[in-house]
Amino acid sequence: MKYASPARQENKQRVNKFECVEYYTGTRIKMEVYLDNSATTKITDRTRNLMLQALSEDYGNPSSMHRMGVKAEQYMKKAADNIAACLKVEPREIIFTSGGTEANNLALIGTALANRRRGNHIITTRIEHPSVHQPLVYLEENGFEVSFAPVDGTGRLMKDRLYDLIRDNTLLVSAMYVNNEIGAVQDIAEIAAELKKRKKDIIFHVDATQAFGKYRIYPKREGIDLLSFSGHKIHGPKGIGALYASDKVKLSPILFGGGHQRGLRSGTENVPAIAGLGQAVVEAYQDFEEKNARMYGLKQRFLREVSKIEGVTVNGLPKECTPEFELEQIKKTAPHIMNVSFSGIKSEVLLHSLEDRGIYVSAGSACSSHHPTPSVTLTAIGLDKNLLDSTLRFSMSDLTTAEEIEYTLEQLKDLVPKLRRYTRK
Amino acid sequence: MKYASPARQENKQRVNKFECVEYYTGTRIKMEVYLDNSATTKITDRTRNLMLQALSEDYGNPSSMHRMGVKAEQYMKKAADNIAACLKVEPREIIFTSGGTEANNLALIGTALANRRRGNHIITTRIEHPSVHQPLVYLEENGFEVSFAPVDGTGRLMKDRLYDLIRDNTLLVSAMYVNNEIGAVQDIAEIAAELKKRKKDIIFHVDATQAFGKYRIYPKREGIDLLSFSGHKIHGPKGIGALYASDKVKLSPILFGGGHQRGLRSGTENVPAIAGLGQAVVEAYQDFEEKNARMYGLKQRFLREVSKIEGVTVNGLPKECTPEFELEQIKKTAPHIMNVSFSGIKSEVLLHSLEDRGIYVSAGSACSSHHPTPSVTLTAIGLDKNLLDSTLRFSMSDLTTAEEIEYTLEQLKDLVPKLRRYTRK
Repeated sequence: MKYASPARQENKQRVNKFECVEYYTGTRIKMEVYLDNSATTKITDRTRNLMLQALSEDYGNPSSMHRMGVKAEQYMKKAADNIAACLKVEPREIIFTSGGTEANNLALIGTALANRRRGNHIITTRIEHPSVHQPLVYLEENGFEVSFAPVDGTGRLMKDRLYDLIRDNTLLVSAMYVNNEIGAVQDIAEIAAELKKRKKDIIFHVDATQAFGKYRIYPKREGIDLLSFSGHKIHGPKGIGALYASDKVKLSPILFGGGHQRGLRSGTENVPAIAGLGQAVVEAYQDFEEKNARMYGLKQRFLREVSKIEGVTVNGLPKECTPEFELEQIKKTAPHIMNVSFSGIKSEVLLHSLEDRGIYVSAGSACSSHHPTPSVTLTAIGLDKNLLDSTLRFSMSDLTTAEEIEYTLEQLKDLVPKLRRYTRK
Repeated sequence: MKYASPARQENKQRVNKFECVEYYTGTRIKMEVYLDNSATTKITDRTRNLMLQALSEDYGNPSSMHRMGVKAEQYMKKAADNIAACLKVEPREIIFTSGGTEANNLALIGTALANRRRGNHIITTRIEHPSVHQPLVYLEENGFEVSFAPVDGTGRLMKDRLYDLIRDNTLLVSAMYVNNEIGAVQDIAEIAAELKKRKKDIIFHVDATQAFGKYRIYPKREGIDLLSFSGHKIHGPKGIGALYASDKVKLSPILFGGGHQRGLRSGTENVPAIAGLGQAVVEAYQDFEEKNARMYGLKQRFLREVSKIEGVTVNGLPKECTPEFELEQIKKTAPHIMNVSFSGIKSEVLLHSLEDRGIYVSAGSACSSHHPTPSVTLTAIGLDKNLLDSTLRFSMSDLTTAEEIEYTLEQLKDLVPKLRRYTRK
């Protein structure tokens, strides 16, 4: 992709002083590096082709009784089977939703309303995604009490503080598997076990949107009752997500209508997207160890090099980690998310400067970018206030290459000092 | 599409007695006729291609600040602009949802919760789609009162009875534009005017899922405050719908999260499907008069001929209509839906017999087919109980050809007497 003619490019190189501004207006790009995979991912060819077939050829309504309906239903059945096999659950425990947000809403509001009599107290963490936080705010307005467990400076739940919040009327606990901003990972299975040891009938919801495909998750074995995830974070389509809901959990629907999906989610099923999700899930776990190992390798390389730039702080990693960033330490965090603060530089300025060199990253999480309020996660981990607005998220996928990481490091090493000089003037 | 070898086919022709059963197991098909367009439609090539581009190339998250996000946002903006232009409303008054069901849920629950103080009485009709009826049941369980206006034998609202239901605390009236089962059409503009004459601040919601593309709808001119419709009924994608919500209506979200779409519908936007919806809407109104005129012609031909078969009743048409089915009368109903009862034949048997000859129709509405309860609409229009389970819906689109209608009539004329003989034995 080129944004300027060679002549225009030469012209620009002459005006060195405003280089960052010039880059901002567009220049020749050596390569394009998409490092915003926690916002959304590129769809795989096989997923797209399967969707295309369901979109164009097998376009029946799964509720129709004739063979075009039956065929559409088969796509759904296959997707549910694939996902269930991957999670080692029953296909009937998979509910397709319009995305991660709806899956989280259904999990929380659906559980709360169906089990109100059992208790009206809910526990969550201080670093949840808005699609968990906001439904809980809604429930608070409707007679529920919500307690928030704190995290430490690396984004890990302070587990004892979490357990101390349990009361007799605690109905539900919701915690994310991988934090979307800094990649902090929780000990989900350990937490589930302890929660249930302390109160047997607690319902445990896990938002696995950023963890799916990066961790092998077996809800039944790990004591997870409800698990949400989304298609477009795992090289699948947008507009589709799923909720695993254990047979044992009573759930109310939050969208009402024709009684599709055993009454739990009405509305004509989005067959192409459901098929796409099923395919994406299968592909996500292909060469699983290999893909993760490669990403951890790239993460290590990136963090080691980026931390050599002056005034750079890496967020969300154990303190013991620096300066060597041993793999053993890095592996305590998610393989794909790097969160870095660049003191003295506005994240927006660095973001657009990188963009002009073909590198796409995120300031905070994309899902929060409509709200230019300080990041909830960064605040919760106690990040220096001056850095809150100087932080970028670099998020990889299995498609990210070593070459792309090197190019990004090169550009950061070049840009960061320049932008700082420019800012100070 | 062929389902049996010529030899198998010959073999079958010898066993005449069980012909209907034999057909059921699969035979050679002369042509495929999709007459289930009220369940779902085939996507147009241009819509599919646009979706494909947003799916594969421009896959950014519209919330991302870099140019891939901006590009994704442009798809959404263009879709909103197209839809708004078509409805003569403002783009900001268009909210994208995961389909017609969510649009109806948002319209009803969102309005009820946001305006509770103004009144807790809601009026609707006896022939609404479950995605209107069921949210109202939910609201009834949560402190609202719902009154139901009756329809006459052709499915038209008894307007005076509707107006008589208005009370001081009536907040909301919800009526469908075109009934999904029999194609009955309501005088929406007239009803809106009279409602607002009687109580100025009544909020009027119209489910236009089956009407969109078949009628020119201008909400502001017609006094419609909320208008729902869906992509996959107008040759667009599944999994996407929209709600027009007048600026003047206070609405609460029903899905909570990152505050997308001005806080009214959180969740990463389904960009490919939104783009597809925008394109489908534009195409739906291309050659509008011509397409409708052609469908009315086919409807006339179909009804005239099908009504010549013994024991056939055409539902949802004015009494004055028969036996000539004058266009003037037919035009009081929707151009694409024909609802016909075949006395003495189970609709399921006829449906599958037609299927085996390549003709795809619906028994009741596909959206209700998960619930083998008697059709709400057919019951409301007072259809003879013996016919409730002997009724099929034939629904066309602008792609339906005269040849397909002739073939369908041929097969019906052949099948209906045979199936009746078979049933009687």
